[in-house]
Amino acid sequence: MNTYELPLLAKVLDMDADKPIILLNEITSKKLDAPTLSRVRIKNPSNQKVMTAIVNTTETIVKPKQIGLFGSVGKRLNSKTGDKLFITVAEQPKSIDAIKRKLVGETLSDEEIGQIIYDISTNNLSEVEITYFVAGVYNHGFTDDEIVSMVKHMVESGESLGLGHRKILDKHSIGGVAGNRTSPLVVSIVTSLGYIMPKTSSRAITSAAGTADTLEVLMPVEHNIAEIKRIVDETGGALIWGGSVNLAPADDKIIKVEHPLSLDPQGQLVSSVLAKKLAVGATYAVIDIPMGPHVKVKNMDEAKELARKFVEVGAKVGIIVNVLITDGDQPVGRVAGPALESKYVLEILEGKRFEDLADKSCLLAGKLLEMAGHCSKGEGYEIAKKTIENKKALTQFRRIIKAQGGNPDIKSEDIPVGKQRYEFRSEKNGTVAIINNRTVNKIARIAGSPITKGAGIQLYVMNGSRVKKGQILFEIFAENEAKLFDAQNFAKANNPVEIEKMIIEEYTGRDFEITPMKV
Amino acid sequence: MNTYELPLLAKVLDMDADKPIILLNEITSKKLDAPTLSRVRIKNPSNQKVMTAIVNTTETIVKPKQIGLFGSVGKRLNSKTGDKLFITVAEQPKSIDAIKRKLVGETLSDEEIGQIIYDISTNNLSEVEITYFVAGVYNHGFTDDEIVSMVKHMVESGESLGLGHRKILDKHSIGGVAGNRTSPLVVSIVTSLGYIMPKTSSRAITSAAGTADTLEVLMPVEHNIAEIKRIVDETGGALIWGGSVNLAPADDKIIKVEHPLSLDPQGQLVSSVLAKKLAVGATYAVIDIPMGPHVKVKNMDEAKELARKFVEVGAKVGIIVNVLITDGDQPVGRVAGPALESKYVLEILEGKRFEDLADKSCLLAGKLLEMAGHCSKGEGYEIAKKTIENKKALTQFRRIIKAQGGNPDIKSEDIPVGKQRYEFRSEKNGTVAIINNRTVNKIARIAGSPITKGAGIQLYVMNGSRVKKGQILFEIFAENEAKLFDAQNFAKANNPVEIEKMIIEEYTGRDFEITPMKV
Repeated sequence: MNTYELPLLAKVLDMDADKPIILLNEITSKKLDAPTLSRVRIKNPSNQKVMTAIVNTTETIVKPKQIGLFGSVGKRLNSKTGDKLFITVAEQPKSIDAIKRKLVGETLSDEEIGQIIYDISTNNLSEVEITYFVAGVYNHGFTDDEIVSMVKHMVESGESLGLGHRKILDKHSIGGVAGNRTSPLVVSIVTSLGYIMPKTSSRAITSAAGTADTLEVLMPVEHNIAEIKRIVDETGGALIWGGSVNLAPADDKIIKVEHPLSLDPQGQLVSSVLAKKLAVGATYAVIDIPMGPHVKVKNMDEAKELARKFVEVGAKVGIIVNVLITDGDQPVGRVAGPALESKYVLEILEGKRFEDLADKSCLLAGKLLEMAGHCSKGEGYEIAKKTIENKKALTQFRRIIKAQGGNPDIKSEDIPVGKQRYEFRSEKNGTVAIINNRTVNKIARIAGSPITKGAGIQLYVMNGSRVKKGQILFEIFAENEAKLFDAQNFAKANNPVEIEKMIIEEYTGRDFEITPMKV
Repeated sequence: MNTYELPLLAKVLDMDADKPIILLNEITSKKLDAPTLSRVRIKNPSNQKVMTAIVNTTETIVKPKQIGLFGSVGKRLNSKTGDKLFITVAEQPKSIDAIKRKLVGETLSDEEIGQIIYDISTNNLSEVEITYFVAGVYNHGFTDDEIVSMVKHMVESGESLGLGHRKILDKHSIGGVAGNRTSPLVVSIVTSLGYIMPKTSSRAITSAAGTADTLEVLMPVEHNIAEIKRIVDETGGALIWGGSVNLAPADDKIIKVEHPLSLDPQGQLVSSVLAKKLAVGATYAVIDIPMGPHVKVKNMDEAKELARKFVEVGAKVGIIVNVLITDGDQPVGRVAGPALESKYVLEILEGKRFEDLADKSCLLAGKLLEMAGHCSKGEGYEIAKKTIENKKALTQFRRIIKAQGGNPDIKSEDIPVGKQRYEFRSEKNGTVAIINNRTVNKIARIAGSPITKGAGIQLYVMNGSRVKKGQILFEIFAENEAKLFDAQNFAKANNPVEIEKMIIEEYTGRDFEITPMKV
């Protein structure tokens, strides 16, 4: 509308943020009618580069004739201090009307969702605007068609692995269960049998350690698209921190505004997971939904509806999905914390222990083998277990460690864990009834996990264990006394928690074809 | 929970924002588990000052052992570069649960609303969190009781004028009508008759000029509480920019996150207006609701429900409210832009013109006089008009200008307006059918209003005016050629707009007692 372009002199600032921010003097901000948080278009006339950025204001750092550029903005405009730039107020993003419609509960078209995802990934929408979108989805949900549109457009907005048309397997566990480190085991098992499985994982947000935090103890997990392709070509597998590639940038920005209220509407969760699967080219995916009072999915109705969405939307975007609803009521594995967990995974592959983490991993890997046609239904678990027993999975894990730049000869006993330790003992005789995931995670974090790799917690009992007074229940590991002390005090004031059979129920595409779920 | 206090060395930064921001090195941010936008408690052990601030991160500006303080944070902690400060992660604000409940449509208790307003005004809630609250209110509305709680707690969160128990009058016009500069006239009229009316006004957000922008041409409008009291003691009236006092700080933060989507849910609007009335101690208030397709309130159903809320909630918080629903379909007055509007107001008080702005002001002032018991119902308008005719209102306006530090001898012809002018002429014969408020505002803004005081637009016709081809319809004023050119091009591509009788209907507390409205 207002075509008036204001010329300003660039001042590159030694500052950066996770958004493209520019700094205007308050006088300039008023003159342009561009207050804090509004968007401006910036043009560098010397190279015709143009971008949109968000305004912050200052009275001192830049003068009225200047524009302060945060590091990334300077780079994108290829501009240095003293360059003349032209600034105009950016028009209101096209997707604002669609966001308002979602906020009041209307259903959005594929085109509208495409515009929203485009505006999010090009920084045309602010956090406040993205928040209104999430609020609408949280309040009114997404139809299956809307989720399909979300998946498609989120994949379009980012990079894809482009491995070609092959059978590519993938898995995903809905978060919140301590020690649920199945990914390295599942990847090692299925790739040892010749399948392709490039797995991206996250770092911890509220848990003691994410898979990426844990695997980093054994090998570098940050690799770009070209490196991942090379690793997959060499080994069939890859274990990568998802943040090092740009698979669905819009999704990451949406997740960021969900955190403050711990929102995670089902429709958004399904589109987020499937977009990341589709971006790596997955054709078969198994989804693990831990269910229980202390994890994300609280009851069977919620779990079933989530499973239905995964299977049906998956089919619409070309991924065959099977869902396993599992017991989320106690930690999987006996440890939480990067070094302790990586040690534990190696011990399983070395044949030193099996227990529930290995059991669950064989279930997930077995399901993928059945889906990919490697064997008949019901045979997958035993085939998976055999790759652990005959050390094929261990050999394969070492190949991946080597391809990603780690030491392939590392043994479980080589991994150092925290030297400051505290043994927490039972005050009475009895049977362990429940172990609370949240508390376990919290103790590990207070002890320093995941930043301090050696920090964490080791459990010596599980649900149903008979214990005697004075017996060690768990041990806390830290690398400095103050943190050990804090963790130990917290543990004294708060103590562990329930159990049932591992897989409570199972849903496949077939189930839904035969018996449609009520919504 | 985590009681671990990290000692860091302060580095005061030459930077400020509208929020209390501190800068942590990324390593420190990870160590503390305090990512960008999370909140930390900072303690200055030398003076025991404690505050909550929002984390931004950097790789370069501060080192891992440092904490960068934005200007206002340094001041509040009374801390200088090199001071040792203690940092802990702030606990999740108490009001997060209440915000989630509002988001899904539940009704909040007085205590919950109190906690939300407290957390907003103490910077314990981020913009994203406040946005979720607004989204909930927009989607599900407020009950009258919730609005009462909002008003009470917003007033508690800020300063109050504290003029004691007197008859204090106030008015408010719901925004969006160009040239609707009734406040200086209403204040001059009622205070000339001995009543108290300390009026706070806003600056323009999307209009050509706010009342504060306009009056600033004649006198300083930024005064603190003590100065306002002195001005009111001397004159009975005051015309103040609301932003210079801190009457309901939580409200200002809520309004800020409403802007990007232009949301203004009725419940929030009513609580916002009444909180500001209550904070100045108003006992009688008249609310002007312009209604029409191009302003905030589009139709009679919406206007009536808004009127009902104002009257009933007003009664519950101790303010007697009368509402006038007026014609919002064409500009009130003939001009838009600070200098043009202040000149126009002076011309009315000098007796040089009367027209619709004066007419509307006498209606509003007359209503206040009737409510305050100065005269019987139906007599207020004529009494108000008489104070203009006998120049008592002018004398009173000059007293206020003087008390606020302006030149009391200024005359309308002394006010300079933009020297760059363009006369926009009719291309055919006919009758003016409609004048569009939005377009008028936009032309004035493109010409430079409200920053450039002399910029704006003067209308020479109104709805129903008979015009001939070549006759001047309006004139654009600017202070530089480029802006005049832009405004003139915009005007050529977009042209003016409808009319009916000024007050369409009137609602008083009495009406609602007799005939309860359907909700």
